[in-house]
Amino acid sequence: MAYDASTLPDVSGLTVGIIGGTGDQGRGLAYRFARAGQTVLIGSRSAERAVEAAREIAALPGVPAGTGVDGGDNAEVARRSDVVIVAVPWDGHAATVAALAEPLAGKIVVDCVNPLGFDKQGPYALTVAEGSAVQQAAALLPDSRVCAAFNHVSAPLLADPTIDRIELDVLVCTEERELVGVVGALAARIPGMRGVYAGRLRNAHQIEAFTANLIAINKRYKTHAGIRVTDL
Amino acid sequence: MAYDASTLPDVSGLTVGIIGGTGDQGRGLAYRFARAGQTVLIGSRSAERAVEAAREIAALPGVPAGTGVDGGDNAEVARRSDVVIVAVPWDGHAATVAALAEPLAGKIVVDCVNPLGFDKQGPYALTVAEGSAVQQAAALLPDSRVCAAFNHVSAPLLADPTIDRIELDVLVCTEERELVGVVGALAARIPGMRGVYAGRLRNAHQIEAFTANLIAINKRYKTHAGIRVTDL
Repeated sequence: MAYDASTLPDVSGLTVGIIGGTGDQGRGLAYRFARAGQTVLIGSRSAERAVEAAREIAALPGVPAGTGVDGGDNAEVARRSDVVIVAVPWDGHAATVAALAEPLAGKIVVDCVNPLGFDKQGPYALTVAEGSAVQQAAALLPDSRVCAAFNHVSAPLLADPTIDRIELDVLVCTEERELVGVVGALAARIPGMRGVYAGRLRNAHQIEAFTANLIAINKRYKTHAGIRVTDL
Repeated sequence: MAYDASTLPDVSGLTVGIIGGTGDQGRGLAYRFARAGQTVLIGSRSAERAVEAAREIAALPGVPAGTGVDGGDNAEVARRSDVVIVAVPWDGHAATVAALAEPLAGKIVVDCVNPLGFDKQGPYALTVAEGSAVQQAAALLPDSRVCAAFNHVSAPLLADPTIDRIELDVLVCTEERELVGVVGALAARIPGMRGVYAGRLRNAHQIEAFTANLIAINKRYKTHAGIRVTDL
């Protein structure tokens, strides 16, 4: 029952779409998956900007020649992907997700959005009527398989081509045990990462909100903090 | 600005009181501090039970002969201690803390209480009017120096005399930078632990609530999970 990477499913044949793939977090994740040879689709409101970002990512250091990196508008990317990561700003979360309900039906949807506010004292967790961003997505996508993951992954680390390993755990909140395997296997394609089951969707709020604490840690210690689960 | 244990203040002369020191968490922390040679006072509603627990802790493996481990009722312990850890069940938190406002005046108060509910789906975070247990304590103790810490420390690990090192980070939420040093130095008396500043009190809720996720992790992976901040 301990964490065991050898039991993870083979996800190398899956196409990973990233809604909001031209933002820092989405672009960084796309780069890391492309570096691992995963087929990646960059989604954006503008298909043109998505195609441009895909071209840039495919040309980044470490991405194997011939890796499929393509771009399109969010709906097209949702339709063509097996696993879809939602990486849009919290402001546009509900509207973007709701508009994609049809193409996302039947898909695995991984929400990594953190509802945070900022004032002069720094970041703080916003109250979300549904409880959390991922619960909002689950409510808007009744025909999708929704989970939360990749909430704590530092965009600057993802983007830095000189960094090979990113040592942290990706906490996966879900109602479906099978998703832990799929998302855990995707996380494990990024050297240093493990995917760890961290509870049901109703316990996702504090994982999203904890990003405010990581930002405080980053500021105090001049770092790019993540978390590792100990004794696992 | 990185984490640097060499800059921690010397806290070896401080008396650490534990309100709720006969519970699993309080008793476990008391044991670890006593193992490090720290003077510890066990507090309980019943002075008799506190004295009995203190006697038991002083006799546990690894506690140096002559280490000061004593017990008393919560008010006496609050009065006689420099740093007071609040480790009571959430149910009694507000009443216990409010009753100690006078003896806790001027003291450093470290709240490690996690407001959780449990149903057949497992643990979940409770809503707290003040935002979090530590904010409730801060509101009830206007003359104390209140912070949150030790929320994620596994009681079974603390209690196991065969375990020397407990590898995890103690996240400290506070408005006062100085408290990070004092609490961090206390945490560092337990081999394997670091105290890490993790934001203001308004960002403590998610740290308390995250204990629900750790319980889910423990159940799934049969472990005693904590967290370590990476890149620090």
